[in-house]
Amino acid sequence: MSQGVSRPGPILVINPNSSEIVTQGLSDALAGFRFPAGPAIECVTITEGPTGVVTQREVDESALRVGDLIAARPDCGAYVIACYSQPGLDLGRSLTKQPVLGIQDAGVLAALSLADSFGVIAVSPLSIPRHLRTLRRLGVEQRLAAEVALEGISVADSGHGEESFGQLLRAGERLLAAGAGAVVLGCAGMSGHRARLEQALGVPVIDPTQAAVATALGLLLTAG
Amino acid sequence: MSQGVSRPGPILVINPNSSEIVTQGLSDALAGFRFPAGPAIECVTITEGPTGVVTQREVDESALRVGDLIAARPDCGAYVIACYSQPGLDLGRSLTKQPVLGIQDAGVLAALSLADSFGVIAVSPLSIPRHLRTLRRLGVEQRLAAEVALEGISVADSGHGEESFGQLLRAGERLLAAGAGAVVLGCAGMSGHRARLEQALGVPVIDPTQAAVATALGLLLTAG
Amino acid sequence: MSQGVSRPGPILVINPNSSEIVTQGLSDALAGFRFPAGPAIECVTITEGPTGVVTQREVDESALRVGDLIAARPDCGAYVIACYSQPGLDLGRSLTKQPVLGIQDAGVLAALSLADSFGVIAVSPLSIPRHLRTLRRLGVEQRLAAEVALEGISVADSGHGEESFGQLLRAGERLLAAGAGAVVLGCAGMSGHRARLEQALGVPVIDPTQAAVATALGLLLTAG
Amino acid sequence: MSQGVSRPGPILVINPNSSEIVTQGLSDALAGFRFPAGPAIECVTITEGPTGVVTQREVDESALRVGDLIAARPDCGAYVIACYSQPGLDLGRSLTKQPVLGIQDAGVLAALSLADSFGVIAVSPLSIPRHLRTLRRLGVEQRLAAEVALEGISVADSGHGEESFGQLLRAGERLLAAGAGAVVLGCAGMSGHRARLEQALGVPVIDPTQAAVATALGLLLTAG
Amino acid sequence: MSQGVSRPGPILVINPNSSEIVTQGLSDALAGFRFPAGPAIECVTITEGPTGVVTQREVDESALRVGDLIAARPDCGAYVIACYSQPGLDLGRSLTKQPVLGIQDAGVLAALSLADSFGVIAVSPLSIPRHLRTLRRLGVEQRLAAEVALEGISVADSGHGEESFGQLLRAGERLLAAGAGAVVLGCAGMSGHRARLEQALGVPVIDPTQAAVATALGLLLTAG
Amino acid sequence: MSQGVSRPGPILVINPNSSEIVTQGLSDALAGFRFPAGPAIECVTITEGPTGVVTQREVDESALRVGDLIAARPDCGAYVIACYSQPGLDLGRSLTKQPVLGIQDAGVLAALSLADSFGVIAVSPLSIPRHLRTLRRLGVEQRLAAEVALEGISVADSGHGEESFGQLLRAGERLLAAGAGAVVLGCAGMSGHRARLEQALGVPVIDPTQAAVATALGLLLTAG
Repeated sequence: MSQGVSRPGPILVINPNSSEIVTQGLSDALAGFRFPAGPAIECVTITEGPTGVVTQREVDESALRVGDLIAARPDCGAYVIACYSQPGLDLGRSLTKQPVLGIQDAGVLAALSLADSFGVIAVSPLSIPRHLRTLRRLGVEQRLAAEVALEGISVADSGHGEESFGQLLRAGERLLAAGAGAVVLGCAGMSGHRARLEQALGVPVIDPTQAAVATALGLLLTAG
Repeated sequence: MSQGVSRPGPILVINPNSSEIVTQGLSDALAGFRFPAGPAIECVTITEGPTGVVTQREVDESALRVGDLIAARPDCGAYVIACYSQPGLDLGRSLTKQPVLGIQDAGVLAALSLADSFGVIAVSPLSIPRHLRTLRRLGVEQRLAAEVALEGISVADSGHGEESFGQLLRAGERLLAAGAGAVVLGCAGMSGHRARLEQALGVPVIDPTQAAVATALGLLLTAG
Repeated sequence: MSQGVSRPGPILVINPNSSEIVTQGLSDALAGFRFPAGPAIECVTITEGPTGVVTQREVDESALRVGDLIAARPDCGAYVIACYSQPGLDLGRSLTKQPVLGIQDAGVLAALSLADSFGVIAVSPLSIPRHLRTLRRLGVEQRLAAEVALEGISVADSGHGEESFGQLLRAGERLLAAGAGAVVLGCAGMSGHRARLEQALGVPVIDPTQAAVATALGLLLTAG
Repeated sequence: MSQGVSRPGPILVINPNSSEIVTQGLSDALAGFRFPAGPAIECVTITEGPTGVVTQREVDESALRVGDLIAARPDCGAYVIACYSQPGLDLGRSLTKQPVLGIQDAGVLAALSLADSFGVIAVSPLSIPRHLRTLRRLGVEQRLAAEVALEGISVADSGHGEESFGQLLRAGERLLAAGAGAVVLGCAGMSGHRARLEQALGVPVIDPTQAAVATALGLLLTAG
Repeated sequence: MSQGVSRPGPILVINPNSSEIVTQGLSDALAGFRFPAGPAIECVTITEGPTGVVTQREVDESALRVGDLIAARPDCGAYVIACYSQPGLDLGRSLTKQPVLGIQDAGVLAALSLADSFGVIAVSPLSIPRHLRTLRRLGVEQRLAAEVALEGISVADSGHGEESFGQLLRAGERLLAAGAGAVVLGCAGMSGHRARLEQALGVPVIDPTQAAVATALGLLLTAG
Repeated sequence: MSQGVSRPGPILVINPNSSEIVTQGLSDALAGFRFPAGPAIECVTITEGPTGVVTQREVDESALRVGDLIAARPDCGAYVIACYSQPGLDLGRSLTKQPVLGIQDAGVLAALSLADSFGVIAVSPLSIPRHLRTLRRLGVEQRLAAEVALEGISVADSGHGEESFGQLLRAGERLLAAGAGAVVLGCAGMSGHRARLEQALGVPVIDPTQAAVATALGLLLTAG
C-alpha cells in the first residue's frame, strides 16, 4: 500500500493453472493497462499447476503454490490471483501487507459499481456451488441475478472460437432474462470474448482479471 | 463500454461543488492516472454549485446540474461523480450508455476487494444517514464496521492542514477499534491526507475518487 | 408531530405530475378519510410537472418542486408524496419536522402489516429497477414476491377502463402465482380499480396513497 | 377487505389482559379516530386474561382467547390485537378474511414509514427476546437501533405517572444515542405518555395501537 | 444440560397429535439411538390432540398441551417436540432449563451442516407459509432452495405406502432441480420413507425427529 | 449416508494438529458417544501437522492432509474435522459421498437449535476474522452476539488448568453481556472445561466436536 515518487513495484498476475495459452491471453487482455510511468504488469504461469483449476483438490493445492509465489516475490506492489476460485487469497493476505486481489471479488464488485444486479457465466457447472459460497462470504449474494455454466468447454478454449462464443452468448441472454444489469465472466480464460459479448448483449461485460488489475492500479497510482 | 484502437474518450470527473480548490485537489490526486495512451482525465467544477454539497437540497439541485453536464459531454468515455453523496447518479445513467460512477459506491466496493469490513469517515454528521441509505441500496451495509464524522471542518479544508489530519487520524482509530479492515474517505475533498493517513493507520485508506477513476480506467482500457 | 385540542393542520397530498385527472382520482379515493373533526385532506397538482413521472429526469426535477411546495406550506400537519417514485422524500424531510410520507414506502409497509409477502404492479417496466432500489433502501426487498408491469397504459389511464383493469388483473394473478399474499398498486393513478381488483383476486390490494394518508391520519389524530 | 356504501363494521381492539384500566387507556388514546361516518372502534377486555401478558404461557393462553373472540365477532370489519406480543395473530388470520393486525408489526412498520431506523421501549426485559423473534419473522430486524426495557413498572402503570414517564424518557434517550430516528412504545399500556415523550425527545414516538388502528381505518375507509 | 456419572434423564419425544401410529413410527425410527448407557428415549402421544396438527388452531391448542406435558415431566433430560410446526417451543423453553428442541429447527440446521442449501417436503400446502415464518425467525430462509407439498396424504400415511413414497420422490426431484443439496422431511410422520428416499435421490435426506434426538443426545452424553 | 443392519462404519474424528494431548482430550470428551451397537469413534492425530492450526498457511496445508486422510479411509461412515477452522471441509466433501462435518458449522448450528443468538470464544484474536468469514459463508452471521478471544493460551492448554478456565469464564461473561443465549467453544481443545463453564454461566455451552459427532451419529444411526 505504500507508494513513493519512484515507479511502484509490479503487479503480479498469477495464473494458477499451467496453461501458457491462458497466461498469454491474460497478458494480451491487460495490454491497455501498461504504460511507461505505471507499474509493470507481469503475468506468470504456475507451471506445476493443473491444466485448469476445476476440482476442489486443484483449488486447495493451488492455494499453497500461490502463497509460495507471493512469498517469493516481495518486490511486487500488488498481487492478482487470476483464477475465479481465488486459490490462496487468504494465504496471500497473511503473507504480505501489499494488496492481494481475487478476481471473483474484483469482478463482482466492479459489476456492482455499474449495475443493480449481475449475472455470472461459469466455465463449468461444477464451479457454481464454490462461487456461491464465495459470494456469501463477500456478502453480496442477494445482488446475483443468476449464474449459468458453459458445457464441455475447457478453460483454455473459453476465450477463443465460435463454439465458446456461441455458448457465452446464450448464457448471457439467459442472465439478461433473469434481470442481470451486468455480466461477469466467471473464468480468467474468457477475456478474449469480452468486447464482442458486450457488443452483442448491450450491457457491461466484466472481465474479472481486468477488473482486479484496474483495482490494483488504482491502489498503486495514488502517490500521496 | 466502447473500445477501439483509438484513444478512448476522456474520463470526466465532476465536482458538483463550486470550490476550485477541491477540483484542483482532485486533479492532483489523479495525476498518477494520466498517461499518454490512456484517456484524458478532466476534472471540472460546476461553478453554479454550492461551496459544499451538504444539505439535501444541495444534493438534489446538484443532481440536475450533473445530469445536464453529462448530457452536454457525449464525447466522454466515462463519468465520475466526485461527491460522496453521488448527486445525479441515476439521472446520469438514464442519459448515457457510457459508465457513470459514483464515488461512494466505488470507494466502498474497492474497500471490500481488500478487507472483510470497512469504516467510513464523513465530513459532517449530517451526511451519515444519507450515506447509510445509499449503502443499504448498494446492499453491503452489513459490511460496514462504523462511520464517524469530522466536526467543524469544511469540505475544502478536509484534505489539508494539521487540524483536519488530526481529526481524520482520531476518526480512523475509532474505525479500527470497531473492526474496520479498511477505511474509506467519505468526501471527495480528503484525498490530500490519504497516503499519510494510511501510513499512520496501517490499513488501506481508500480515496473514493481514485477508486472510481481506477474502475473507469479499467473499463476504458480493455480493448477487445 | 405534536397536536392539541384544535383541529390538526391539513394533510397535503402532492401529485407531482400535471394531470388534474390523476389528482381528482386521488381526491375521490380519499373521500372516506375526510370527516369534520379530522384534518383537511388537500390534493394538489404540481401544474408545471410532467404529465407522468416516468423518466429519472422527471423524478429528479419533481423532487425540487415537491420540496418547494412543502416549504411553501408550513401550515400542514403532514405531507404525502403521491407518486410511487417518491420524488422529494429526503428533501421534504430535511425541510420540515412534520411527517413526510412516500407512497411506495407506505404501501409496502401496509402490505407487510397484513401478509408475509407482497407483489407490486408497476405502470411501466421502466419504473421497476427504481422501485427495487427503493425497496433495498427500505430494507424489505426479501419480502417482495414479484413486481410486474402494465404495458402501454398511461398513468392517467391506469385507474380507469376495462383495458387497464384487464391488465391489472392478469398482473395480479401472476403475483399470486409468485406467492404474494397482498398486492400493492405501484402507481398513484390506479386507485380507481383497487376495490374491484381486490374482489377479483381475493387478497388485500393496497392503494399506496390511501395507505400513506391512513398513516398520516394516525399520526395526526393522536392527541396526547 | 370488503367495503360498500354502508358504514363499515367496527374495528375490534382486543386487550388480552384483564385490566380495564388498560382498556380504558386504549379507548382514550383512540378517541381521535372515532367519527360519525367511520367505523366504530370497540375496545374490549378479555376478562379471563392475566393482569398483564408477560410470560410465554400468558401469551399462548391468550392466543386461544383472542382467536375465540375473533371467531365470535364476525360482524367486525377489522381486528387489532392490542398487545405487543400479538397473541393469536396467526390464529385470527386463519379464522377470518377480514384484516387482523398485531400492534408490534403495525407500530414498527409505522416507524419505518417515517425514519431510517427505530428503537423500542419494552415494559420488561423478559419481553425483549420475544419481540426480537417477531422482528426477525417480520424481516426488519436490521432496522432496529436498539430495544431497552423499563424496570419494575407494571403494564397498567406504564402509561401514567412520573415514575414511568421518567423511565420512558431515559429509555428514549438511550435509543436516540443508539441511532434511532423514531421510537416505538413496546406495550399497549404506554399510550398515555406518547405525546409528552415525543415532545421531550424531538423524534416521532409511535403508539403501536394507534398505528394499528390507523392501518385498519385505512383499509376500511377505502370505498371503491 | 446437566451431566453426571449417572445415566442422564430420558429424552421425551412428544407427538402432539393423537395418532399412535405416528408415535410408533417415531419410536421405530429412533431405535438406533437407544443403547444401555444412553438416555431412555420415550415417545409419547398427546391423546387429546388432533389426528394431525394442520390448522393454526391445532398448532396453538397443541402448544399448551405440550407445555403442560413438559411441566409434568421434570425428570427428563431433554424434550423434543416431534411436529414440524413446533407447537409449544417457546412455552417449553420458558418452563424448564433443560433443552427443548423443535424438529423444524433441528432438521434444517442438520441439513445446513451438510449442504449449502436445502429443500423441504411439506405434508400439506397449508403448512408452507407457517414453515417459512419459522425459517425467517431462525434466520436461515436465504438457504432454502424450495419447499413443496404433498397432496391429499394424511400425516399418518405420509411415511408408509407407495402412493406417499411416489409423491415424496417427485417432490424431492423438484427440490433437487431447484438446487437443494439436502432434503428435509417436513413432517414427523415421514420417517418410514427416509432411507429409501435418500437412496433414490442421492443426497442426504434428513428426518427432523432423528436430527433433533441426535442433537439432544449430543447434549446429554457430554459428561464433563 | 447409506446404512444397513450391520454396524455402521466408524466416525473418524480428525485432529489436524500434531498434539496427541489434544487428540486424547477429544477422545475423552467423546467417551459418552461410544456404545456397543453404535459406530466406533476413532480420534486420529495428523502427526505431520503443526502443533496448533493458527496461521492461514497452517490451515491451508492442513486442508490437503485432511483430504488425504479422508481419501485413505473409505471405510468410515462419517468424518469430523476437529479444528474450528475446518481445514479440508470442501476438499473432503469432494472426495466422498459420506458426511464430512466441520466443527465450527456443527457447533454454531447446535447453538442455534437452542438459543436465539450465540457467542463464540476463540483461542486467539488472529482466528476471529477467519471465523467470521466462515459464518458469513454459512449464512448465520446475524445470529452472532459476539466473539471474544483468549490471550496467550495455546490450543493444548485451552482445555486444562485454572488460568485458561478463568479466561474462558471472563470471555463467557462478556458474551452473555452482549446478549448470547448460548456459548460455542471456538477451538477443539477446550472441551475439558465445557461442563464447568456451563455450570458457571448458566447457559448452554457447546463443545463443537461433541456437536459434530452427535450430528454424525444422528446420520449413522438412522437405519431405514
